[in-house]
Amino acid sequence: MLAKRNKMDRLTATPIKPVLVSEIAKAIGAEFIGNNDIQITSFCTLFPGEPGGVTFLANGAYSKRLKDTKASVVIISKKQSCPENFACICLRVDNPYRAWGKLLLEFGKEAPWSNKAISDSAIIHETAQIANGVTIGANSIIGKNVIIHPNVTIYPNSKIGDNSILHSGVVIGADGFGFALPQLPETSLQKISHIGHVIINENVEIGANSCIDRAVVGATLIGAGTKLDNLCQIGHNVQIGIGCVLAGQVGIAGSCIIGNHVQIGGQVGIAGHLEIGDFVKIGAKSGVHKNVEKGKTIMGTPAIDASKFRRKFAASNMKNE
Amino acid sequence: MLAKRNKMDRLTATPIKPVLVSEIAKAIGAEFIGNNDIQITSFCTLFPGEPGGVTFLANGAYSKRLKDTKASVVIISKKQSCPENFACICLRVDNPYRAWGKLLLEFGKEAPWSNKAISDSAIIHETAQIANGVTIGANSIIGKNVIIHPNVTIYPNSKIGDNSILHSGVVIGADGFGFALPQLPETSLQKISHIGHVIINENVEIGANSCIDRAVVGATLIGAGTKLDNLCQIGHNVQIGIGCVLAGQVGIAGSCIIGNHVQIGGQVGIAGHLEIGDFVKIGAKSGVHKNVEKGKTIMGTPAIDASKFRRKFAASNMKNE
Amino acid sequence: MLAKRNKMDRLTATPIKPVLVSEIAKAIGAEFIGNNDIQITSFCTLFPGEPGGVTFLANGAYSKRLKDTKASVVIISKKQSCPENFACICLRVDNPYRAWGKLLLEFGKEAPWSNKAISDSAIIHETAQIANGVTIGANSIIGKNVIIHPNVTIYPNSKIGDNSILHSGVVIGADGFGFALPQLPETSLQKISHIGHVIINENVEIGANSCIDRAVVGATLIGAGTKLDNLCQIGHNVQIGIGCVLAGQVGIAGSCIIGNHVQIGGQVGIAGHLEIGDFVKIGAKSGVHKNVEKGKTIMGTPAIDASKFRRKFAASNMKNE
Repeated sequence: MLAKRNKMDRLTATPIKPVLVSEIAKAIGAEFIGNNDIQITSFCTLFPGEPGGVTFLANGAYSKRLKDTKASVVIISKKQSCPENFACICLRVDNPYRAWGKLLLEFGKEAPWSNKAISDSAIIHETAQIANGVTIGANSIIGKNVIIHPNVTIYPNSKIGDNSILHSGVVIGADGFGFALPQLPETSLQKISHIGHVIINENVEIGANSCIDRAVVGATLIGAGTKLDNLCQIGHNVQIGIGCVLAGQVGIAGSCIIGNHVQIGGQVGIAGHLEIGDFVKIGAKSGVHKNVEKGKTIMGTPAIDASKFRRKFAASNMKNE
Repeated sequence: MLAKRNKMDRLTATPIKPVLVSEIAKAIGAEFIGNNDIQITSFCTLFPGEPGGVTFLANGAYSKRLKDTKASVVIISKKQSCPENFACICLRVDNPYRAWGKLLLEFGKEAPWSNKAISDSAIIHETAQIANGVTIGANSIIGKNVIIHPNVTIYPNSKIGDNSILHSGVVIGADGFGFALPQLPETSLQKISHIGHVIINENVEIGANSCIDRAVVGATLIGAGTKLDNLCQIGHNVQIGIGCVLAGQVGIAGSCIIGNHVQIGGQVGIAGHLEIGDFVKIGAKSGVHKNVEKGKTIMGTPAIDASKFRRKFAASNMKNE
Repeated sequence: MLAKRNKMDRLTATPIKPVLVSEIAKAIGAEFIGNNDIQITSFCTLFPGEPGGVTFLANGAYSKRLKDTKASVVIISKKQSCPENFACICLRVDNPYRAWGKLLLEFGKEAPWSNKAISDSAIIHETAQIANGVTIGANSIIGKNVIIHPNVTIYPNSKIGDNSILHSGVVIGADGFGFALPQLPETSLQKISHIGHVIINENVEIGANSCIDRAVVGATLIGAGTKLDNLCQIGHNVQIGIGCVLAGQVGIAGSCIIGNHVQIGGQVGIAGHLEIGDFVKIGAKSGVHKNVEKGKTIMGTPAIDASKFRRKFAASNMKNE
């Protein structure tokens, strides 16, 4: 039996040195009213959120669920109203995503830069095999019998589980792709710091030149026994379950939750923030733009039920003969 | 004139230290009846197969052609019947692909692990140019005037032909993507050992960060004079002919046979086990799911004749104006 | 404010050691008539072209605009007629692209080969951070506060602007993908030398394992403040404007001009020689095959107006329910 997903990992929050809500409000130019000036101890995602955590709401689609967050502070747009009897403190700003980026930069802590091949603070099991040209960043943990092939890069704070294999050119933990778009009079994109990390569980294999980005906060996760082919792209905060198979050149955008035993064909793309159920199969080259229920087989771009796709293709072919 | 494909290379079989059929049967829990306990001298593909070789049949689509194999032993499903008067020895198991994986692991021999930059056993022509950060594995052969740019990885047993150029980040010979799916009560994927290698013939150019996986048995082949752009993925046991042109981000799944002078547009994907004829042209971003005859031009996903594709697109556009 | 594109960069021409037109004609077997044996001082693109430059016309689609070039010499097909009162010298050959390739090889000058990690002639600002396993080629210039992560390769003559970030495995300046197809009795592809380079302007971020090819002549350009995600492929002579965002696995074929503030979704492919206007948005996984006007939003393969795409998809879905 493969191990179940480890619930003890803090996948959706990253602790910070405690800071008062009033200091956070000041940093982002938000008004803070009241005397409930509690300490904030982490940056967290909106859902589930955690007590003591600060998070943000930028996407209107999540407004209805805002009341469900367990975070202590939410940065929201000035145009947005707080739910009634809301337990959270709301900080209102013009551009919540930019304010969030500012906070991450000011109070978060990215890993230190280094030009060493193997960081002194990395913890590498004596049975791990580390090839030529490998770089392992600060505070990374490499498990038993792990095999790391030449020219792999592991950014700081990454965890690689027992018996996992990383093929040449793999990049674990690079900055996720997050930039706040400008709002006039601003004209430049603002980089979002990524203070999270990557967790690769046991018995995972990652194909050559594939990339797993680190999380904004919390962790990007590859579940136990999952296998990725070459040149795959896994965005920040993606969580992939156990026993999945991803063929070559698959791309999964940020914050997707992929279930267990999911099979994904070559060159498939999955848009951000989607949930793909257990045992789903996705045909090669599909483009997935919405959630997929457990056990479904889908294909096409935009991807639809596979049997429907085949009927459509057959019908369209006949019509044009 | 470009050289013809070298028929002397054993592209579809890998020799092993000889072992008796009865030992193979025992290893995979198959019944072996009779006194024809011959020596097995190689692992081979089903077609053509070679005398002395052991292979397997997992895909029902090949059942009809089973009688054509030249292998001496075939591992088949217990549900499968052997052809009448079949010259081969059939070994019956519940899951032929998992049994094959077990045999490769037990009797095959993967290249030894090393953390050296350039293996002592690699044979590198004195005129070859090897840049900074390159890793060359055991028993690899690098020909005359080969140029290997920085941070290339060449796994063991690879052959790089004269005048070929490998750009930065190229990975030659990583493990192919082969995992036997679990059958209950099993729940974990089983890695298929890859004991084959990669052959790059002369005058080949391979673009930055492209990956050519090594074969399960025999060789993955890139024919003379063929040019690959950046970020291409070539699966295990693919054979590409001479003078082909592959644009950027093309993916070719395992065991495809690509003819000579084939032109493949950017981001094309080709499903596994297909045959693409000489002089075929494939439009950018197409998804190819079946064999393509010599000289055809195709496009779309699933790819169809190019002129038909254009008519369909024009018709569908008019309808919705 | 982001800096405007720097007009002083010679993006479409590369200087050469001066050579007479008669020598060029002789090298490619073209007839040179007249006594106007001027000196040629650069290789340049057809448009705009520059006085003193030699260029070529291989694509019939540009014939009508031939009279607009500012080049001094154009290599054209024997089947092609020169415009009347044409200020240029026309050199006629059977295969202009092969002739061009021959000239680049004979009179152009590729950067010298080296196996050093950091070339002695590279100019690296003292504030730049260069990680483990990085290779920087001859005459490259690395600006202030640039961060180069492990295992990046920078080919010779590249320029990396201030505050830019290159993630692990990035390849800057590899040979563009240019090969002249054979015309009988020839049977082999002829490599086109790339004597141009790459310019990355300030505040650019390039994701892990992405590739930016160098130009045939002149430069491939990434504009200030533009951000690329992982595994992107940017072909030779592409020019990308300021403040653009390219998601993962995007591919842009050679010589495209991308405007400012363009947003490109994951896995999009853009065919060669296209112009994409400012503020264009391209939906994920689209295939773009023609120019796109300023401000448009497009999607699909081939890509069409986004609202039209959605209507077509909805209609086609209903029809098959």
